[in-house]
Amino acid sequence: MIKVGVIGATGYTGVELIRILARHPEVEIVGVTSNNYAGAEYSDLYPSLKGYFDLKCEELHTEELIKKSDVIFSALPNGHAHQLANEVVAKHKKLIDLSADFRFDDLSVYEKWYGPVPSLDDRIKRVYGLPEIHRLDLKGANVVGNPGCYPTSVILGLAPALRCGLIKPEGIIIDSKSGVSGAGHSPTLNNLYAECNESIKAYGVARHRHTPEIEQELSYLAGSDIKVTFTPHLVPMTRGILSTIYCDLKDGFTIQSVRETYREFYSKEFFVKVLGDGQYPRTKDTYGSNNCHIGLAYDEHTGKLIIISAIDNLVKGASGQAVQNMNSLFGLPEDTGLDFPAIYP
Amino acid sequence: MIKVGVIGATGYTGVELIRILARHPEVEIVGVTSNNYAGAEYSDLYPSLKGYFDLKCEELHTEELIKKSDVIFSALPNGHAHQLANEVVAKHKKLIDLSADFRFDDLSVYEKWYGPVPSLDDRIKRVYGLPEIHRLDLKGANVVGNPGCYPTSVILGLAPALRCGLIKPEGIIIDSKSGVSGAGHSPTLNNLYAECNESIKAYGVARHRHTPEIEQELSYLAGSDIKVTFTPHLVPMTRGILSTIYCDLKDGFTIQSVRETYREFYSKEFFVKVLGDGQYPRTKDTYGSNNCHIGLAYDEHTGKLIIISAIDNLVKGASGQAVQNMNSLFGLPEDTGLDFPAIYP
Amino acid sequence: MIKVGVIGATGYTGVELIRILARHPEVEIVGVTSNNYAGAEYSDLYPSLKGYFDLKCEELHTEELIKKSDVIFSALPNGHAHQLANEVVAKHKKLIDLSADFRFDDLSVYEKWYGPVPSLDDRIKRVYGLPEIHRLDLKGANVVGNPGCYPTSVILGLAPALRCGLIKPEGIIIDSKSGVSGAGHSPTLNNLYAECNESIKAYGVARHRHTPEIEQELSYLAGSDIKVTFTPHLVPMTRGILSTIYCDLKDGFTIQSVRETYREFYSKEFFVKVLGDGQYPRTKDTYGSNNCHIGLAYDEHTGKLIIISAIDNLVKGASGQAVQNMNSLFGLPEDTGLDFPAIYP
Amino acid sequence: MIKVGVIGATGYTGVELIRILARHPEVEIVGVTSNNYAGAEYSDLYPSLKGYFDLKCEELHTEELIKKSDVIFSALPNGHAHQLANEVVAKHKKLIDLSADFRFDDLSVYEKWYGPVPSLDDRIKRVYGLPEIHRLDLKGANVVGNPGCYPTSVILGLAPALRCGLIKPEGIIIDSKSGVSGAGHSPTLNNLYAECNESIKAYGVARHRHTPEIEQELSYLAGSDIKVTFTPHLVPMTRGILSTIYCDLKDGFTIQSVRETYREFYSKEFFVKVLGDGQYPRTKDTYGSNNCHIGLAYDEHTGKLIIISAIDNLVKGASGQAVQNMNSLFGLPEDTGLDFPAIYP
Repeated sequence: MIKVGVIGATGYTGVELIRILARHPEVEIVGVTSNNYAGAEYSDLYPSLKGYFDLKCEELHTEELIKKSDVIFSALPNGHAHQLANEVVAKHKKLIDLSADFRFDDLSVYEKWYGPVPSLDDRIKRVYGLPEIHRLDLKGANVVGNPGCYPTSVILGLAPALRCGLIKPEGIIIDSKSGVSGAGHSPTLNNLYAECNESIKAYGVARHRHTPEIEQELSYLAGSDIKVTFTPHLVPMTRGILSTIYCDLKDGFTIQSVRETYREFYSKEFFVKVLGDGQYPRTKDTYGSNNCHIGLAYDEHTGKLIIISAIDNLVKGASGQAVQNMNSLFGLPEDTGLDFPAIYP
Repeated sequence: MIKVGVIGATGYTGVELIRILARHPEVEIVGVTSNNYAGAEYSDLYPSLKGYFDLKCEELHTEELIKKSDVIFSALPNGHAHQLANEVVAKHKKLIDLSADFRFDDLSVYEKWYGPVPSLDDRIKRVYGLPEIHRLDLKGANVVGNPGCYPTSVILGLAPALRCGLIKPEGIIIDSKSGVSGAGHSPTLNNLYAECNESIKAYGVARHRHTPEIEQELSYLAGSDIKVTFTPHLVPMTRGILSTIYCDLKDGFTIQSVRETYREFYSKEFFVKVLGDGQYPRTKDTYGSNNCHIGLAYDEHTGKLIIISAIDNLVKGASGQAVQNMNSLFGLPEDTGLDFPAIYP
Repeated sequence: MIKVGVIGATGYTGVELIRILARHPEVEIVGVTSNNYAGAEYSDLYPSLKGYFDLKCEELHTEELIKKSDVIFSALPNGHAHQLANEVVAKHKKLIDLSADFRFDDLSVYEKWYGPVPSLDDRIKRVYGLPEIHRLDLKGANVVGNPGCYPTSVILGLAPALRCGLIKPEGIIIDSKSGVSGAGHSPTLNNLYAECNESIKAYGVARHRHTPEIEQELSYLAGSDIKVTFTPHLVPMTRGILSTIYCDLKDGFTIQSVRETYREFYSKEFFVKVLGDGQYPRTKDTYGSNNCHIGLAYDEHTGKLIIISAIDNLVKGASGQAVQNMNSLFGLPEDTGLDFPAIYP
Repeated sequence: MIKVGVIGATGYTGVELIRILARHPEVEIVGVTSNNYAGAEYSDLYPSLKGYFDLKCEELHTEELIKKSDVIFSALPNGHAHQLANEVVAKHKKLIDLSADFRFDDLSVYEKWYGPVPSLDDRIKRVYGLPEIHRLDLKGANVVGNPGCYPTSVILGLAPALRCGLIKPEGIIIDSKSGVSGAGHSPTLNNLYAECNESIKAYGVARHRHTPEIEQELSYLAGSDIKVTFTPHLVPMTRGILSTIYCDLKDGFTIQSVRETYREFYSKEFFVKVLGDGQYPRTKDTYGSNNCHIGLAYDEHTGKLIIISAIDNLVKGASGQAVQNMNSLFGLPEDTGLDFPAIYP
């Protein structure tokens, strides 16, 4: 059994982690910490877990928690994981961090968008934890930067096209739509029911900080510097991200050959499904699951390839992917504890 | 492995059955039938199941399906299961019927509310499939009348109070609220998005046909004839039923003793959770699970006991309970294949 | 033109007041105050009003605002209006208060549920501002306690039955369902999108402070002391209250005679509509309007009369009713500026 | 008073027409027809209008209805208005058609996407009824092709940019999101509550028939042939369209100069509001109103101008615009009967 400690367990990604880990056949949760709720029964805070998880929230005593754990999941806000990683690797344990702290190859990019980084232990071997793209690098890693929700949907949608050179690398436009749980569990005007219901809006237009994360990975896939226009939107639903991606198909390719390439690229992947001709993904069909559904269309009269990808932002976009990364780190089949379909309708 | 055939598999209770059965460790699904979609890949109709279930919908050939199955689930509309039951028991197989056809002890009550019943095979041993109440009777049954969604929430909410004589049997009022998936998968004005969203209404006031079903079971529990006032409401959400039940506490009992009795009554039940003082159930905390959450309050200034129970109408209120019944019929632990918590948030 | 000042204008009832008053043909808004947003363009805070209302939020200078106004609307939280009323009546102006501060005939009841009351100016002539019930008293009043949203729906639903002695006064049960805007504009866990969406729950069970307000008015109507069991629920919608009321019809009355009495009772009322046989109100049909729809049913097998009433909690349940009261105070037709139907669908 | 007849009055655009026209100070509704509901009280079908509109639905007798009307609104499906227009102009009356039948300058484009057109009376003088663009042409028209909902949001969003040459005409990408009422009042799987709620999807990808309508008007504005990539999405809300438009800003312009040009372009328009720096429209802020809100952003690192426009699909996207067109045809101020703000929240 893998001994797991969860730090910052009482946000939405935290409770989703607990939902998955509590039934994972190879996991024992040894501690969950919460600044706000130390001492409380976790299942009093989250009654959905009554009968499934019976630990209490603890105050965070980092050293102690690391000691009794094989792997730490951190669901703290951005900026807390660097120091934590130093302590974890010093004890030869592993860290899976759900914040942005370890997502960037180039620390100066991180610092520009998120703030200063303390000095890091040399023994940290970080990886961007999108297993479908960086599976090999996961083997030797001890720190995983779990991807952002928008980037996950976008990178999976574009990976075959960029890696296999199907599209021109310029002018990619990404129009993403997210459910409100992505805004987190802390009450603000932005995530109030009466503000979000019966409304859709764009936000962070032309300056959302998932843009550099997306560009880093797309550039890696393309082997050249990629710039994208990325616009996120807030949709009146709890879960789900749909990314509609517009790009220019290179001459010589057809929608049929594109679809074939996508299917081959993802043929060994348990979680990624490439839909058929005329089928387009709905976020509902991924609700509560670790799956990513991808649809493809070609607009003949403008030459645009349109790629649409759907995930559950809290599962494949956060906690499910984190568990997938853990499985990979510990040599388990990636779908262990994650092989459940979406809830429909 | 239990060989399972599903008839009428393409409504909402049908697809929920498939979601659960496809991952049930002791089940092999041998056939799914659909009048409307014979020949179609099931996972093209329901892409949420892509990768989890790969049968095609078949036309219904009853004899053949019964032959290759150990148990038949029928999710057909009311009125189709009587004849089917005759054929199933003739072949010494079992039937779990999700319609109202086998819910009534007294056929004349069924006929009054639903229509005529053909003559039934003597070998049919039917049971009202609420395992928490009729577990013993399930052992010898070959036909299960799977309870209605509203009745499930109401009966579980009132069972300890009536069985243990905590409340007066007269004047019980039941105000129930349901999500729209209870109205089914066939398009009508009543279940259109724009009609249901941002609205709540009562329907079937003073004449909903779940009333006699509720009264039958409450009378059984009380050992005397019970009449109730039952009003269902349609709420803008996909899943969930909340029943708020008003009754008169007998002298000599307190809210503390009531809560204790409830906890003892359900102490061995995996799926029923009695909440603590000041805690009231939310349907969200049962979303996608087979759980029933029950909250209790006492209104001192009027002497009313208020019982609130929450379920997912498609799981404990339909398909999950059907699988729980199957587990019971075949001697498996009741939670086999059903031990997953709700999706939150 | 009536000169109007609005205090606490930036909550949901405040912005709804502005929406209505900004187009009222006999009103000039002379000032809007906000503690949090002083100095801001109102229509930058609430872009729905761009082009319709172009004042800035001011800091509250009570004396000055009263001086330039004929009537003050206060949408401040409970506990601020007593002192304000003293100042308003000293200047011979009028106050319409949307909090609970002036809803109670008996100040000791207010103090039990809400807290201490300062000494009040003798010149205050308060009235409970439900015009359909207290129209005559409005004529001489200078301070209006605008009713709560739940009480409005309940009192209008029960008024004809109690006033005309159609029902037994004991054992009335009120099961109310409200949209989330009733929880206000201040962010808390309770009104977060991801907490409210796809869920229904009861709250304040057996102890909601609208209970004494309801009982005061029902007792007035019945001419005897009335106690009720009242349970509010939170429903995933922005606006709307539906109250389902259960009571015992007295011998000698039928559903037909009840309906006739209701129609006669409300025959002169612009805003109250009594629906026909088999018709039940939907909150959607009152959305954004000052209307109240009432449906009636009789459950023959239990003798219960079921009354269902629907309003928009922010209009008839708050700001629309406040304007109706203003119209009445100033001798205008009550529907002035309020004669718009609901937005459907 | 303008005498108005409404044909096909019982769909969602029909009932929205009635809501607006019933309170229009210069209109008398002389007849409403419905194939499905002839003989029914309109306000029994749509109780939101109880007390506001008391006609019965009639069977359609075209000649008679035209005779007693000054103007006919047709809310019939596509393909019925050509013949109707012949009859209307023969009687020297006017027609405002809410279908696609009169939206196209080039009938062959209509026929390619919608089907054959009968021969048309020479006296028909049609205009594309977007008053902000074709106001002058409205003066002499007797038949108005009321624009589609998506095209309205897109054309208003792009008009200043194309007319004033701020952007390159190639490579425009339009990502639109619509509420479910746009799918109409006839029940299908696509507009069921349980299918739409908690989900977002694209549809009609690369082949939606609003594309040629959009391209016709954008080409008119640009003075050159414009091709666009247009993708509509279905969002879980009842009303509202948000269009996010991506295009390339020409050298020499800045976001400041763009915003200024937009403000000047729309400076005389009552219904179009250009938001400030960093402000982006929410559909909620146009809910129930005839307004269009436009936000602008410039993505420096890719050179893209991002234009976001929001409308209510049933008002500015359909029935409100139809009334605006009527006002224009009859020489009334365009905002007559339409000067109400959105309902918020």
